[in-house]
Amino acid sequence: MVRTILATLTLCAMFTSLSEAQGPQSLNLMPLPAKIQMASGQLVIDPSFSVSITGHKEARLDRAVELFLDQLRRQTGMPPIDMKVTDSAAATLVIQCAAGTKEVQELGDDESYRLEIGNSGARLTAPTTLGVMRGLQTFLQLVQTTGQGFAVPAVSIDDSPRFPWRGLMIDVSRHFIPLDVLKRNLDGMAAVKLNVFHWHLSDNQGFRVESKKFPKLQEMGSDGLYYTQNEVRDLIAYARERGIRVVPEFDMPGHSTAWFVGYPELASGPGPYEIERKWGVFDPAMDPTREETYKFLDKFIGEMAELFPDQFFHIGGDEVNGKQWDGNPKIQDFMHAHGLKDNNDLQAYFNKRVQQIVSKHGKTMLGWDEILRPDLPNSIVIQSWRGPDSLAQAAKQGYRGLLSSGYYVDLMWSAERHYLNEPLSGAAANLSPEEQKRILGGEACMWAEYVSPENVDSRIWPRTAAIAERLWSPQDVRDVNSMYRRLEEVSQRLEWLGLTQNTYYAPMLRRIAGTDDISSLKMLADVVEPVKDYSREEQAPAPATSASPLNRVVDAARPESSTARQFAISVDALVSGSSRPGTEAEVRSLLNRWRDNQTELQPLIEKSLLLKEVAPVSQNLSALGAAGLAALDYLDRGEHASAEWVTRQLALVEQAKKPQGQLLLVVVPSVEKLIRASAGTAVSSTPSSSLSSSSPSSPSLPAH
Amino acid sequence: MVRTILATLTLCAMFTSLSEAQGPQSLNLMPLPAKIQMASGQLVIDPSFSVSITGHKEARLDRAVELFLDQLRRQTGMPPIDMKVTDSAAATLVIQCAAGTKEVQELGDDESYRLEIGNSGARLTAPTTLGVMRGLQTFLQLVQTTGQGFAVPAVSIDDSPRFPWRGLMIDVSRHFIPLDVLKRNLDGMAAVKLNVFHWHLSDNQGFRVESKKFPKLQEMGSDGLYYTQNEVRDLIAYARERGIRVVPEFDMPGHSTAWFVGYPELASGPGPYEIERKWGVFDPAMDPTREETYKFLDKFIGEMAELFPDQFFHIGGDEVNGKQWDGNPKIQDFMHAHGLKDNNDLQAYFNKRVQQIVSKHGKTMLGWDEILRPDLPNSIVIQSWRGPDSLAQAAKQGYRGLLSSGYYVDLMWSAERHYLNEPLSGAAANLSPEEQKRILGGEACMWAEYVSPENVDSRIWPRTAAIAERLWSPQDVRDVNSMYRRLEEVSQRLEWLGLTQNTYYAPMLRRIAGTDDISSLKMLADVVEPVKDYSREEQAPAPATSASPLNRVVDAARPESSTARQFAISVDALVSGSSRPGTEAEVRSLLNRWRDNQTELQPLIEKSLLLKEVAPVSQNLSALGAAGLAALDYLDRGEHASAEWVTRQLALVEQAKKPQGQLLLVVVPSVEKLIRASAGTAVSSTPSSSLSSSSPSSPSLPAH
Repeated sequence: MVRTILATLTLCAMFTSLSEAQGPQSLNLMPLPAKIQMASGQLVIDPSFSVSITGHKEARLDRAVELFLDQLRRQTGMPPIDMKVTDSAAATLVIQCAAGTKEVQELGDDESYRLEIGNSGARLTAPTTLGVMRGLQTFLQLVQTTGQGFAVPAVSIDDSPRFPWRGLMIDVSRHFIPLDVLKRNLDGMAAVKLNVFHWHLSDNQGFRVESKKFPKLQEMGSDGLYYTQNEVRDLIAYARERGIRVVPEFDMPGHSTAWFVGYPELASGPGPYEIERKWGVFDPAMDPTREETYKFLDKFIGEMAELFPDQFFHIGGDEVNGKQWDGNPKIQDFMHAHGLKDNNDLQAYFNKRVQQIVSKHGKTMLGWDEILRPDLPNSIVIQSWRGPDSLAQAAKQGYRGLLSSGYYVDLMWSAERHYLNEPLSGAAANLSPEEQKRILGGEACMWAEYVSPENVDSRIWPRTAAIAERLWSPQDVRDVNSMYRRLEEVSQRLEWLGLTQNTYYAPMLRRIAGTDDISSLKMLADVVEPVKDYSREEQAPAPATSASPLNRVVDAARPESSTARQFAISVDALVSGSSRPGTEAEVRSLLNRWRDNQTELQPLIEKSLLLKEVAPVSQNLSALGAAGLAALDYLDRGEHASAEWVTRQLALVEQAKKPQGQLLLVVVPSVEKLIRASAGTAVSSTPSSSLSSSSPSSPSLPAH
Repeated sequence: MVRTILATLTLCAMFTSLSEAQGPQSLNLMPLPAKIQMASGQLVIDPSFSVSITGHKEARLDRAVELFLDQLRRQTGMPPIDMKVTDSAAATLVIQCAAGTKEVQELGDDESYRLEIGNSGARLTAPTTLGVMRGLQTFLQLVQTTGQGFAVPAVSIDDSPRFPWRGLMIDVSRHFIPLDVLKRNLDGMAAVKLNVFHWHLSDNQGFRVESKKFPKLQEMGSDGLYYTQNEVRDLIAYARERGIRVVPEFDMPGHSTAWFVGYPELASGPGPYEIERKWGVFDPAMDPTREETYKFLDKFIGEMAELFPDQFFHIGGDEVNGKQWDGNPKIQDFMHAHGLKDNNDLQAYFNKRVQQIVSKHGKTMLGWDEILRPDLPNSIVIQSWRGPDSLAQAAKQGYRGLLSSGYYVDLMWSAERHYLNEPLSGAAANLSPEEQKRILGGEACMWAEYVSPENVDSRIWPRTAAIAERLWSPQDVRDVNSMYRRLEEVSQRLEWLGLTQNTYYAPMLRRIAGTDDISSLKMLADVVEPVKDYSREEQAPAPATSASPLNRVVDAARPESSTARQFAISVDALVSGSSRPGTEAEVRSLLNRWRDNQTELQPLIEKSLLLKEVAPVSQNLSALGAAGLAALDYLDRGEHASAEWVTRQLALVEQAKKPQGQLLLVVVPSVEKLIRASAGTAVSSTPSSSLSSSSPSSPSLPAH
């Protein structure tokens, strides 16, 4: 039923031609609704603004309206004593909610809504409180500053999500993320209509939740950095108020060293164990052959199944290297006795046993790609870090799946790359409609090797908003320029929620430089990005650990340089002859500042140890600035640069492409284009947006 | 005893010549310690940093060290699993604490400490946990980014406060300030060694604390915006962990309309009453002639005396206009019968009765100037909004006092003006040492007519740090340039605590403009300040109320323009011929941008209602930019400007001096100087720093 509505709306959406410049894409909505009808006029928002709730009533709905008003007050600076909930049918915004929601939100709960805004009032109708929540977020995104004051445009929106599972996973094991940071991220999720918070609670580097049955888990496995059960309940209630389900993950049988610090008997090799301080895949794994393991897991999962009300329970199941199993004669005997021919079979046996336990406690099991084996029931859900093909395979076998491959925000990819990563692409595009329905959606994943409470927001946002749009909006919504325009706006608005993806930057740079005058450092930091994929590990001079300070330029640098992206657009226009007046002056102005920046930055570099590693990057930027200016001079004069000069500049370009301090200087490809153009050679076909787009998705990336 | 130490240290401080450029004032300390001895070298701070506690142990001390490490981690980006507390005598920082503190912190508790930092370690010794807290804050301020990594300089500091009462009052009645905002302000207080949070909890516009005995106080008097008793206890515990006392104020018999909404029988006139929505002094006052009033207050004060553990209890006592008393025949009869010849006598009678109640519940009464009458015992404390002379008078009569006149941060004065406001000046300077001791210190006051949770930090900080220095540091520490240099640094550091006095600015401007590209608006907003003193009320086109949105440019504008201050310094150097190379270019560059700014800002003004009121300010700024440039041209050419031109420009200057949109364009006096200089006339002797300094302290300012 929900699906039928979705399909209809998707069809309708096509008629509204979402790519029109002055159409719905001019609104700052993200994700874009399924169907938008623009009207003329606007509804002014002033302190007399009021909301009434008709139809079904429940505390969760009241709370949703309260949160909405809080947010509206923050966005407009209106005082809390006005802008109220009233009973009056003449309220500015009338909410009509047909039915309540269950105590525990479920997969597939109706999130649709209809929002009609006219010049004198607005009406939000929805079949459930969840739909009201989504519609209220749309309303907030519509609020604009206008010549008449704050207002929302007259518009009619019919909306519902394309996928029912739209998640964000946060790893709190490799670096602990405090509760308040998680909460502001839940606020961000609600703002872009994500509905599942996947809480990666245990891994080799930390066990982060209080178990009353097995207290040594958190006492010995967390350095004291864990959530109490009360805190967990608090977070779940917070999420529920925002229409977000909370799915816990306890990774097993691998990724589990932290369990073994307190309970070494669970492991397949002799202890003692310590919390892992490094990153990577480690040998320790649970012993799947001992009945005591399952007794422990039965009690533990029973305890957690009660603490976490959601229907789904994630057991991880990824990346077991099997070394402890190979090295344990008892385990080898067991495999032989039970006809398990390899470690995959053994893990499948483990998963089957765990699945029975999870099921016994009333939950549905969820795990990474590796858990998929035909002997598990069709009820389980596969989360894919391998890609849509792997999902398609699962769907054909009757399994439901989630896409996370392509949504790993720790890999420092561009928003564009995440955005165009389509769950129903590749083999999944050719599935039958019935099979496609098994692809439930996807999850952005924030793995936490290199994040702290200080910079984690900047790794999640705003790029996760682009992923949210991919999962909510119709499949044909894929205009990258529109996405970037709206993404910048959404990013500013997420600040009202307390997220720090914009504000973390200057204080970190000031700390690194040890001075308040960071203009030259900012000039450099604005055009670098952290290295992509897993290169930060590969290129580290010494292996990073959980004790490594995350206070370097690479930790402050934004995952995607907006300056570089804009610069690339301008250079492309210049070399293709399609630039508008003023473009060359802008490009020259930037190149000039880059050329001169090294002189200004050098005194800071001398005074700060943390800046020493970026000295070569700064030198490269200055050299590129000079080269780019010279290239423009050739172009302006209509001369061709000499081959000798071009060769020298291209050597410089090659030099500048190499990562330094685990940073990429992402304006290099654009300067290269200018140089090549000045030589009169054909413009290189290298993707221009940034170096970040040049490395293709690798199917061999680990899941964590 | 404490006093003797203070006096000795103050003397010692003189020998270290605090005004030396490369001396202690080069450190980013605020308040400056009583005695600093610089040494050579530094102590590097890396993840191996550890702290040990020797001597006296108590939970409060452990917690202080935990908070210190949290903060040090934030300032350095070091990970939480390192930087620990150890038992080792070889810890990087060894803390030796001689004795614990009482359960409830008291006025005059010893806050002294000695901090010695060498190349290989540091030692902090203090007689009490309080002293340790203060010393740890000094340590945090010493942390610098250096060429060798993070480090603190080798130094030896002996420190203790000049005054034992160093407070910040926040009015939470006129605008409710949520608990988390108060907490971050307590963090800020601790960072600059303030030790009293004065919580102005009730006023005409709201009664903000839960009473279980008289629940209609908060239920009917707060619009639902109040603190529960649990929240109050939580805040007090939070303050205690930071060495801060919490003094509650319940203003009576005036400033009390909010009480009467639920309990009209307390008032001197017939009800019913409503919460006041406007600002000013109102007629309603408690009825001092009915015994029921005192029965009520006895129960209420008893309840609050238990909730708030501090020794002091503030009863307000300011600004009773007496109209309700005059109009009530029963009250007139009572006055006649009791020989009370006027309303002052009647209020004195009330105060005496209340003082007995406060005293009965074990507390010491504190009140504003007006409560001072010889029939009250010497134990009470007077908080002066009238000035040092009024304090001196009280001290002579044996009363202790606090200075708040000159520390009202809502009046938008410059940091300099607050900084130079000396408690022991005027008549107080001539008091005997014994009498001077009765002047306990002072309090910055944040009255809340025009603040919201969004901008309140910016009204308190960083200027309150300058007041904190006045109250802590030796009296001869009064170098304004040094203060401003350190204040900027302190302000950036307060951001690590979550304060928003810097970060609130851009989001507010973006909201006002309705766009992310706010460079032209920022250019204007950077050189305006809100009107001073009580002019915002006086110049309002319509009376402001608690329902007025605080989302205008005047709400975003900073109380003191740093751009204007720097510009004034440059212009003064130019016209006096003492400028360094580059100064004229900087001045020209600013004038150029101002001249051209109107063109850039105009399109924004057309799109935002909130910008319409600043259009004339922007036009004035552009005109001044052009005038300043022309004046410089005359000066450069060595020509005198024509009298006709000068007259025209000075007319423009007069025009630009007028407030618009309740904003002052604070670069006007500097441009005027350029114009006058170009005319060859003598430079005006008007104070140059900004318009803000031109209005003298007025003794007739109301207390609130």
